[in-house]
Amino acid sequence: MPEIKKILVANRGEIALRVMRTAREMNIATVAVYSEADRLALHVRYADEAVCIGPPPSSESYLRGDKIIEAAQRLGADAIHPGYGFLSENAAFARQVREAGLIFIGPSPESIEVMGSKLAAKQAAAQYDIPMVPGTAGAITDRTEAKQISEQIGYPILIKASAGGGGKGMRIVGKPEEFDEQMDRAVSEAVSSFGDGSVFIEKYITSPKHIEIQVLGDQHGNIIHLFERECSVQRRHQKVVEEAPSAVLTPEIREAMGRSAVEVARACNYFGAGTVEFIVDEALNFYFLEMNTRLQVEHPVTELITGVDLVKQMIYIAEGKELPIRQKDLTIHGHAVEVRVYAEDPATNFLPDVGTLQTYVRPQGNGVRVDDGFEQGMTIPIHYDPMIAKLITYGQDRAEAIQKMIRAIDEYRISGVQTTLPFCRFVMEHEAFRSGKFDTHFVSKYFTSENLKSEPEPFVQELAALLTARFMAKVPASRPPVAAAGTTSKWKSRGG
Amino acid sequence: MPEIKKILVANRGEIALRVMRTAREMNIATVAVYSEADRLALHVRYADEAVCIGPPPSSESYLRGDKIIEAAQRLGADAIHPGYGFLSENAAFARQVREAGLIFIGPSPESIEVMGSKLAAKQAAAQYDIPMVPGTAGAITDRTEAKQISEQIGYPILIKASAGGGGKGMRIVGKPEEFDEQMDRAVSEAVSSFGDGSVFIEKYITSPKHIEIQVLGDQHGNIIHLFERECSVQRRHQKVVEEAPSAVLTPEIREAMGRSAVEVARACNYFGAGTVEFIVDEALNFYFLEMNTRLQVEHPVTELITGVDLVKQMIYIAEGKELPIRQKDLTIHGHAVEVRVYAEDPATNFLPDVGTLQTYVRPQGNGVRVDDGFEQGMTIPIHYDPMIAKLITYGQDRAEAIQKMIRAIDEYRISGVQTTLPFCRFVMEHEAFRSGKFDTHFVSKYFTSENLKSEPEPFVQELAALLTARFMAKVPASRPPVAAAGTTSKWKSRGG
Repeated sequence: MPEIKKILVANRGEIALRVMRTAREMNIATVAVYSEADRLALHVRYADEAVCIGPPPSSESYLRGDKIIEAAQRLGADAIHPGYGFLSENAAFARQVREAGLIFIGPSPESIEVMGSKLAAKQAAAQYDIPMVPGTAGAITDRTEAKQISEQIGYPILIKASAGGGGKGMRIVGKPEEFDEQMDRAVSEAVSSFGDGSVFIEKYITSPKHIEIQVLGDQHGNIIHLFERECSVQRRHQKVVEEAPSAVLTPEIREAMGRSAVEVARACNYFGAGTVEFIVDEALNFYFLEMNTRLQVEHPVTELITGVDLVKQMIYIAEGKELPIRQKDLTIHGHAVEVRVYAEDPATNFLPDVGTLQTYVRPQGNGVRVDDGFEQGMTIPIHYDPMIAKLITYGQDRAEAIQKMIRAIDEYRISGVQTTLPFCRFVMEHEAFRSGKFDTHFVSKYFTSENLKSEPEPFVQELAALLTARFMAKVPASRPPVAAAGTTSKWKSRGG
Repeated sequence: MPEIKKILVANRGEIALRVMRTAREMNIATVAVYSEADRLALHVRYADEAVCIGPPPSSESYLRGDKIIEAAQRLGADAIHPGYGFLSENAAFARQVREAGLIFIGPSPESIEVMGSKLAAKQAAAQYDIPMVPGTAGAITDRTEAKQISEQIGYPILIKASAGGGGKGMRIVGKPEEFDEQMDRAVSEAVSSFGDGSVFIEKYITSPKHIEIQVLGDQHGNIIHLFERECSVQRRHQKVVEEAPSAVLTPEIREAMGRSAVEVARACNYFGAGTVEFIVDEALNFYFLEMNTRLQVEHPVTELITGVDLVKQMIYIAEGKELPIRQKDLTIHGHAVEVRVYAEDPATNFLPDVGTLQTYVRPQGNGVRVDDGFEQGMTIPIHYDPMIAKLITYGQDRAEAIQKMIRAIDEYRISGVQTTLPFCRFVMEHEAFRSGKFDTHFVSKYFTSENLKSEPEPFVQELAALLTARFMAKVPASRPPVAAAGTTSKWKSRGG
């Protein structure tokens, strides 16, 4: 069994640091790769050795598998961890790593390939009893039959162009009477957009939740799941707030989803860490969406509620070790919430606001974890995803985790760039989020930049109250006490 | 039931911040008090309001209960949290707080009084079936009887001066034949030191462990324990490394100690957070030592393995709420280790080395918590305990927590003052610590400043190896390869 002694991390930023920290804890040496734009980045400083692999953009550096493999060989690394993004789900890269005699810390190229194709993934999953969104198996040829199927599925249904994508040729049908009209439109849109009028039918989930299951499999056929993460708060299909466990799952549904996820993984002979994503409707029916064959951005919430270091397990698995954890050993403890802190201005429709972190002081204390790749004085490069940090809090229950998150957000001091922290705070305080009754439409349904108009600082409020009081003493009593609310609402902005 | 809306924290440094963070999470306003030496301290900045209560030393400020109560009343605080040290175990202060119409976030003055007196504490505990170190009940009058008792207890025994303290008039007797000689010496030492020759006999624990139980009691008679902390690594009776759980307790002994601790708390009608300390011998017999009627420095390790925020519970209890946690709800998850980072130089017998933190970068990442009261550029005041931070790590098991601690110590960057971090690393790597087989003699038995002679940095080692290799090529083969070990031991300093 090969023991890994030196890992090259083919990534940058917080995830490169995340992986290297665990490597150090395992007495494994680390090699960083970096682009010319990242010369001063923390992951470069943290690693034992570092190699520049080219200029930005990523296609010239972080996506250059050949240069990365060459660097690994030259420096005597015996394994490559891809992190997330970049080459992490590139089957060809995983194969090249293997062919170069190195260990790819992730699944086999074959698993990546199967799950990389939505169709192949569904076909693999179909061999097992894994729930899929109900619909027609292929393109519709007979309209009468299509209507019958729609009745069986139950309205609302969705008509989708087979060749479609990006929402084009997609029509929601609310009731049977609308079927013909919407079908005509869908077909004509499909023809004009894709030159192909074939469409299929799927159940339309009105209020979808995004809930995913973390799995771990070893190379000996053992596969376990580490419960769910709910990632329904999304902006343009991008997760922005994640938590574990979900506020709404029952133990029975959790178990059923876990079982399904393990079966999906088994369907592609999966080993490594992976995530099986499901769409969940209001009645808590769940349907297989896709599988991500890598470490997820939001993996820390799972680490906090299970105590399992996922990167450590990935390394063990890559070494060929048997999983040291059995399903029955795993239980959920407490609740964890993660928010992604981006250098984007939520007041201007989340325009990226890269620049220099003039002030950068992280929150601390009980139940707070910050995974980031920056220090005060550093500049956020324009070439990459503008995520500054992942802020994660842990509490005995969901309410406590949320309260700790609000406290941590308030404690985070960042100046020089606008960040999404005020938006994250908005989410934490929103009744829909707090109640757990929210879906992937949360942001479009509730958020506008108007929501960020904050109350004045307590000091300003006090000053206003004081001035008002003085002023009031000198004016007729009929005058309304304009700032009287200032004192009582002092703590409201802390989420009371 | 009074709801606390504003808390004055009658303390400084990390513990003041620790308490304020939880207060914020509960939407409770905070008031800091500070001495003139602490004007720029973080706890002053963190609080919503802050009051200077006098100059250093503490007797002029942090110990001035009258000024603190006056400040609380003036600013409308309804409760005072004393932290640890200073006024935290001062029954008179707790009583004055109560008489001023404020809530003392801690036990009743009566409980503090009983447990503040070793004799009263033992008498209270004696009503229950709580194990005490075996010995004579009072001073010895009859030498023959004393010998009989010693035989019953079992050698080695300890002869202690009744009026004693500081180790004076204390004699270890290894076997019966030595009894008379040692008794003579003890009595004569007692007479010369204290003018009182009365002595008593106690079992001598050759290899004592310090293990303590965290308890929480509410004002309705509910008392629970939150398992143990082992604090056997001590320097001059000062804890320096703590962990939870202990590496050696069995579930049965843990339960028995927990039960005893709850009984000790019940013996003094305890409410609030408290710690019952035990001495544990090699056979895992445990004996009641004393009870600390406050939050302990090392409380975070308990928070990490139970998920319970102890400060939050203290506040709930002070408000008169019932404990929301039952004994049966509590289980141990994972393992936590804490080291105390002092501005002291372990290479010069731990001389305090106060000064300015020229570099101060905390370790981060999965399973790392830093509780501190400093930022880069700040000066450690000479007037107070020179603790810079508590570094706490959490892992799935003890080995993982220790590995995370070593990684975190290596990642901590402090310059400007010498710290005890190298000493903490020495402990983490020591075989006795790793095996769990260590006692309160650990430091005196194993540590000398010689232990800190570190290996050269990897870079220097590589350079040496390189130069040697070049040199070797030019000299006769008989020359020994002096630096050949440099390359292979590169990772040794990471604890492998």
